[in-house]
Amino acid sequence: MTLSAGEIDFIGFDVYGTVVDWRSSVSRAAAPFLALYGIDIGPDQFADEWRALYQPAMERVRSGERPFVTLDVLNAENMRTLLSRHGAEVGAIPEHALLELNAAWERLDPWPDVLDGLRRLKAAVAIGPLSNGEIAGMLRLARYAKLPWDVIVGAEIARTYKPQPEAYLASARAVGAPPARVAMLAAHNDDLEAARACGMRTIFVPRRTEYGRGQVKDLEATQAWDVVGDSFTAVADALGCPSGRAR
Amino acid sequence: MTLSAGEIDFIGFDVYGTVVDWRSSVSRAAAPFLALYGIDIGPDQFADEWRALYQPAMERVRSGERPFVTLDVLNAENMRTLLSRHGAEVGAIPEHALLELNAAWERLDPWPDVLDGLRRLKAAVAIGPLSNGEIAGMLRLARYAKLPWDVIVGAEIARTYKPQPEAYLASARAVGAPPARVAMLAAHNDDLEAARACGMRTIFVPRRTEYGRGQVKDLEATQAWDVVGDSFTAVADALGCPSGRAR
Repeated sequence: MTLSAGEIDFIGFDVYGTVVDWRSSVSRAAAPFLALYGIDIGPDQFADEWRALYQPAMERVRSGERPFVTLDVLNAENMRTLLSRHGAEVGAIPEHALLELNAAWERLDPWPDVLDGLRRLKAAVAIGPLSNGEIAGMLRLARYAKLPWDVIVGAEIARTYKPQPEAYLASARAVGAPPARVAMLAAHNDDLEAARACGMRTIFVPRRTEYGRGQVKDLEATQAWDVVGDSFTAVADALGCPSGRAR
Repeated sequence: MTLSAGEIDFIGFDVYGTVVDWRSSVSRAAAPFLALYGIDIGPDQFADEWRALYQPAMERVRSGERPFVTLDVLNAENMRTLLSRHGAEVGAIPEHALLELNAAWERLDPWPDVLDGLRRLKAAVAIGPLSNGEIAGMLRLARYAKLPWDVIVGAEIARTYKPQPEAYLASARAVGAPPARVAMLAAHNDDLEAARACGMRTIFVPRRTEYGRGQVKDLEATQAWDVVGDSFTAVADALGCPSGRAR
C-alpha cells in the first residue's frame, strides 16, 4: 500500500470518468441537439444511455465477434441506436450535426483537481492516457482540456479494449517500461484489477458522482490498491511529488 | 508557398537532426565510453559512423528483408558492429555499459530555437514527432529535452520506416487528420518529398551543421516547400503564431 514516484516510469490514466466528467459534459453538448431535433429524452439520461451502450459495444471487439474499430466509431454507432430508440429519424439529421454530437466525447471537462495534480505528477514521472479512447480523440480531448500528457497509449496501440490484458501490456511495451514500473490510475476498481493482474501498480481515485448523485459503484476501493487518494493532488502527495510550481 | 496554422491540424516533426543535434550529443556521450574501453576512434567520427549505419539498417525493414523492429534495436545492433569494427571486444564490455551508450539517442540536445518555436507552434496546432524513433525513445527524449509534444506518432505506429508512405499515412490517420491537413517539418529534403507525395504540407528548416562543418547535403530547399524558415521560431512567424508567452 505504498508507492513512490521513483519506483515507476509511467502512470497510465483511465480517462472517461477518472480524468474527465463525461456525464455533465456530454449532457451539456446534447441538450441543444435534443431540443433542435425534438428528441424526447433529458440530456443527462441521454448521456447515461449513451454510456450504457459502451461496454456491450466494446465487448464485441474483445470477444472477437468483430475486428477492432476505434471508440469514436463505436460511439457514433451507439449514438444512432440511441437516437432511433427515442424516435428520431436519424437519416433526416444532417451528417455534420451527428459528427458534432459525437465529438462531445472530445470536449469533456476535467475534474477540478486534475490539472494541478497532473502538473505535479508529470514533473516526477511520465504520464499519459491508458484509455479505451482512440489516439486522435485523446489528442483532441487533451488540447481541449489542457491535459499535459507526455504520450498517448491505450486501446488503439493494442488494438483491443481494456480490460483485456493486451491493452495494458501493449501500452507498457510502447512506453518502454516493464509492467511493474507502470502504475494504472483509475476511478474504476475493475480497471485496476485487470492492471494488477498484468503486474502493474495501481492507484485508485474515486469519482463518486461520475454517474450522478445516485451512483452505487466504485464509491470505495474494493482491494488494497498501492495508492488510494481522493484527488490527483492527493495522489501527488502520496507519491512524494512536490507541490511547488514546476516552473 | 504559403501556409497558415489554421489550415493544418497537426505538425509532424522529423526529430534526429531537425529537432535535436544528435551528432554533438552522441559524441559527448561516447567520449568517456571510448576512452574507458580504449577504442581508437574520435567521438565525432564514432557518432558519424554510427549514424551512417542507420539508413542501411532501416532499409532491411523497408524492403521486407526483415520484420519491423524498433529503432533502438537497430541502433544497438549498429553500435556492436561499429565497436567491433574498431577493435573492441564487445563481449567483454558489460551489458549495462552498452545499454547506457545506446541510450545516448534518448539524451540529445535540441537546437537553440526549438523550445521557443515549439511553444509557439503548440499554442496554435497539435505537434508531435513523426520520426523513425520508437515511441519509448521519443518519450524519454522528450522528457530529457523538454519537448512539449501533444502526441507521439511515426515509425512504430506504422511498423515501417520513413520514407515509406505508410509511415506518414498511418501517422496522419492516428492523429485523425487527412494528409492535406498535416504538415511535415524536417531538415531533410527527401523526408519532405515523401511527405508531399502522400499529400501532406511541407516545412523545411535547414540544419546546416547537423553533420558538422563539412556538411554538403540539405543546406538549402531543393523544392518549393510550403514554408522554408531558418528556425522553428521563423516557422512560427510564417504560420502566423503569436510570439507572446502562451500562458
